Amino acid sequence: MAVTLAIDCMGGDHGPSVTVPAALDFLRRDAECSVILVGLEDVIRPLLGRAAEDFGARLQLRHASEIVGMDEAVGSALRGKKDSSMRVVADLVKSGEAEAALSAGNTGALMAISRFVLKTLPGIDRPAIATILPTMKGHTYVLDLGANVDCEPEHLLQFGIMGAMLVSALEHKDRPSVGLLNIGEEAIKGNEVVKRAGELLKVSGLNFFGNVEGDDIYKGTTDVVVCDGFVGNVALKTSEGLAQMITTFLREAFSRNWLTKLAALMARPALNAFKARVDHRRYNGASLLGLRGVVVKSHGSADTFAFRCALERAAEAARNNLPARIAARMAAAVVA
Amino acid sequence: MAVTLAIDCMGGDHGPSVTVPAALDFLRRDAECSVILVGLEDVIRPLLGRAAEDFGARLQLRHASEIVGMDEAVGSALRGKKDSSMRVVADLVKSGEAEAALSAGNTGALMAISRFVLKTLPGIDRPAIATILPTMKGHTYVLDLGANVDCEPEHLLQFGIMGAMLVSALEHKDRPSVGLLNIGEEAIKGNEVVKRAGELLKVSGLNFFGNVEGDDIYKGTTDVVVCDGFVGNVALKTSEGLAQMITTFLREAFSRNWLTKLAALMARPALNAFKARVDHRRYNGASLLGLRGVVVKSHGSADTFAFRCALERAAEAARNNLPARIAARMAAAVVA
Repeated sequence: MAVTLAIDCMGGDHGPSVTVPAALDFLRRDAECSVILVGLEDVIRPLLGRAAEDFGARLQLRHASEIVGMDEAVGSALRGKKDSSMRVVADLVKSGEAEAALSAGNTGALMAISRFVLKTLPGIDRPAIATILPTMKGHTYVLDLGANVDCEPEHLLQFGIMGAMLVSALEHKDRPSVGLLNIGEEAIKGNEVVKRAGELLKVSGLNFFGNVEGDDIYKGTTDVVVCDGFVGNVALKTSEGLAQMITTFLREAFSRNWLTKLAALMARPALNAFKARVDHRRYNGASLLGLRGVVVKSHGSADTFAFRCALERAAEAARNNLPARIAARMAAAVVA
Repeated sequence: MAVTLAIDCMGGDHGPSVTVPAALDFLRRDAECSVILVGLEDVIRPLLGRAAEDFGARLQLRHASEIVGMDEAVGSALRGKKDSSMRVVADLVKSGEAEAALSAGNTGALMAISRFVLKTLPGIDRPAIATILPTMKGHTYVLDLGANVDCEPEHLLQFGIMGAMLVSALEHKDRPSVGLLNIGEEAIKGNEVVKRAGELLKVSGLNFFGNVEGDDIYKGTTDVVVCDGFVGNVALKTSEGLAQMITTFLREAFSRNWLTKLAALMARPALNAFKARVDHRRYNGASLLGLRGVVVKSHGSADTFAFRCALERAAEAARNNLPARIAARMAAAVVA
């Protein structure tokens, strides 16, 4: 199915120098989709080269006069910059000109703007952010990642529903398994909110696996892991820190002397195969779930390849009507 | 200073086959310390060999007729087994015959028994569990790791004090830095309990760094990282899962074909240097803090080397009067 993506070209650490080539690459590979590049026209147009002729109506450029800063306060971005590229991509989804919005900008601002412009789906109290992590078996979707702290059990149930629908839309799995992040497999463990959330998930009709622990994320025990935004953010950031440390230690171990450097040269194919397997760029594109429209957040430091992965993910979510799936599943849950 | 360790020889996945050799090795390396080996006499004595003559009064054996199972319910261990090896090591600290108790058994049971026998220090509401993790700069102490879910801000303050005193006792640092695990550096972020805990820590007289994020654990930003037991447990287990996945992927990358296998052979010195640097066995020995006595929990799967590391850690904590340090710091905090 043909979908149109509205791309905030100004967000992220590298701005249009990454987002524009990634968008053109995406158009080249997906002959059905279209994009609307949003941002400062003077900056974007010179980067297009012959693309305007190549892609015709599949490539549009929409000028937006303002830019949301990476560290800008949410209030200032939301109320002070009504013509920001971030705001315009949300507006384009709202008006139906695009099926998905994508930005590598400030996460808090993107969430606030998306929520303000698009509104939440019926029955969803709070939108959540879901990311994908590599696992021993493939990959797993984890939510929430920081949009929601101090959650109630009902919120965790909603995250479970949204996560399951995300997997069904992106992976075409009928009944994705959902795990509840806890600190022990026994039902007696964990805090009060999590205990009650487990009871709600058990009767939700979802394919609820039960409690999982932190190591189950990387074991790939379930398709979806549900937790509150505080815990999810800590788990993600801790993982980033550990991965960074291991990478640094490996590099240092291989650069100690000429013998280890020679070994590194010989080991390059193996090390490259290893790197490809855990390459976080492939998993770029966190979904803002629970909104009346598809919104995807790229990592700010994404390169062209990573940003294109996020575009592909956004297109797939839009193609499979993710918001409608969530709305339908929520309606079923309310009736039940 | 000479200290005596009471060692539960029956706990852990390997029981006396690991704990006894580790204890003898410890005695060989630390000429001042003594140990009391606790457990089934018939099982332990044959493992001693000539050690009884070698170490004289520094090595005692105390029979305990019962064993707490690794998965045994806390209530059954606490009330049903008054002559368990785990119970007897706590009793020996209580009576003053030993300065520290050590077990590789069931964590929940060890915490419950230690708390029942030894009681908490004045001003401490709940004991906590602290572990050590390797970092880019050395290592960091993280607490709590699962003893306490649903914490109040005051508990997090107490964890900060206990963690700082642990570092002062084990590392001989005067004013260890303390970070509060949160999901953003801005004070506005985080949940209500953490926000309020930050305010308490700020005026506590501790060397409070402020908020840290998950990746700061492995960056080694602060000497101590404070969080509630739910979050700490998730961070630790997630790290274990990720480390396991990376190890597996590395092994698989190097065993793909004869060329990568040859590379692995050449890379062995570098890979071994890397492994030594992140060897979790060196960090074995989690401290149960806030009790009127030193209690250290070894990982259940510890080998002889890892268990000896935990013994050395317990001896150092006892030698430096960790409980007295915590009590003194708590008294100062109450006055302030």
